[in-house]
Amino acid sequence: MISAVNEKFPGQGPAVSAGWRTRQLEYTWLRSLMGRYEDFWHVTESALVTTCNAMKLPLDAAARTQLMESYLHLDTFPEVKQALKALSHLPLSILSNGSPKMLHAVVESAGLEGIFTHIISVDEVKIFKPAPVVYELAVKKTGVEKGHIGFVSSNFWDGAGAKAFGLRTHWINRAGVPPDELGITPDVTLKSLTDLIDLVA
Amino acid sequence: MISAVNEKFPGQGPAVSAGWRTRQLEYTWLRSLMGRYEDFWHVTESALVTTCNAMKLPLDAAARTQLMESYLHLDTFPEVKQALKALSHLPLSILSNGSPKMLHAVVESAGLEGIFTHIISVDEVKIFKPAPVVYELAVKKTGVEKGHIGFVSSNFWDGAGAKAFGLRTHWINRAGVPPDELGITPDVTLKSLTDLIDLVA
Repeated sequence: MISAVNEKFPGQGPAVSAGWRTRQLEYTWLRSLMGRYEDFWHVTESALVTTCNAMKLPLDAAARTQLMESYLHLDTFPEVKQALKALSHLPLSILSNGSPKMLHAVVESAGLEGIFTHIISVDEVKIFKPAPVVYELAVKKTGVEKGHIGFVSSNFWDGAGAKAFGLRTHWINRAGVPPDELGITPDVTLKSLTDLIDLVA
Repeated sequence: MISAVNEKFPGQGPAVSAGWRTRQLEYTWLRSLMGRYEDFWHVTESALVTTCNAMKLPLDAAARTQLMESYLHLDTFPEVKQALKALSHLPLSILSNGSPKMLHAVVESAGLEGIFTHIISVDEVKIFKPAPVVYELAVKKTGVEKGHIGFVSSNFWDGAGAKAFGLRTHWINRAGVPPDELGITPDVTLKSLTDLIDLVA
């Protein structure tokens, strides 16, 4: 994402990317609380527009399209593909804020087709994480009891939401950041997805 | 707030203050969506602790107490007291995320006692802004129809939440920042509270 922004606005990649990500999440929480859901593609585009406005960067239609399309082929962290293959004796599913179009594009672009039993988008319940009804959707779609679902996220707050609902939760804390103080903590903290292989062996 | 932080951590005032405020709001939204309300005093303290942890600043008990107490005597913007007096032919009330203790301390410290008909805290409904039930509380407490309540906030998203519920909304945009893209816009944008005096005259 940073390099995509740098191509359009040289040197602005880190700042635009950070502002964009912050607003993207804020807008999901605000829209969810207001009961005014729009899908993650729409929210992501709104966050990009406001970020560029706030930084006084001219976002023409071509730049907007190009930056948004970078969300359709996000890179995975280096260990992800191999780790998922090593975990594929278990049924693996995605539960994401992303719209169905975004999720299918990213899975294809990352070469992860065929790995997931279910690709579940919050779009089915029209509210974003960490609303409990999102995590409940994992139970409904997979048919697995909530205490038997292992939920994995690199976002502490997402793990907190899953734990609050009753899933068994694993926080991938690659950067070693301190936990958020939300009155609830994921069950297990790991440094990468590779650590999960031994844990579930 | 910045100067209070600078006393404890010289030069870190702006960065701590910004991180603290960001997490404070994020935690209100996340806790509201998870259905895990704690009052704003608690959330504010959690946000301070995580911010100092993330910045590797040693927050001892004395520093924690001192920084938290600065939330009990926040300065108003320069025009606020005079503008509120000029508006006091109207019934004026506060509707805030703040806990009752925080609100009463701030009103007293700012010399605004006796100005407000109602001082309403979200603590009565155990969820934070912008949940609709918060704005509904203004109707219930004041007995004024929602279309006849003029809601004023310097936070765009708070005005958006009030507008989504049905209040007439005024956004005080002192810094001239661009509006957030939340699919809804406050009715009126003003540069300061002083502008409101002519508007309602």
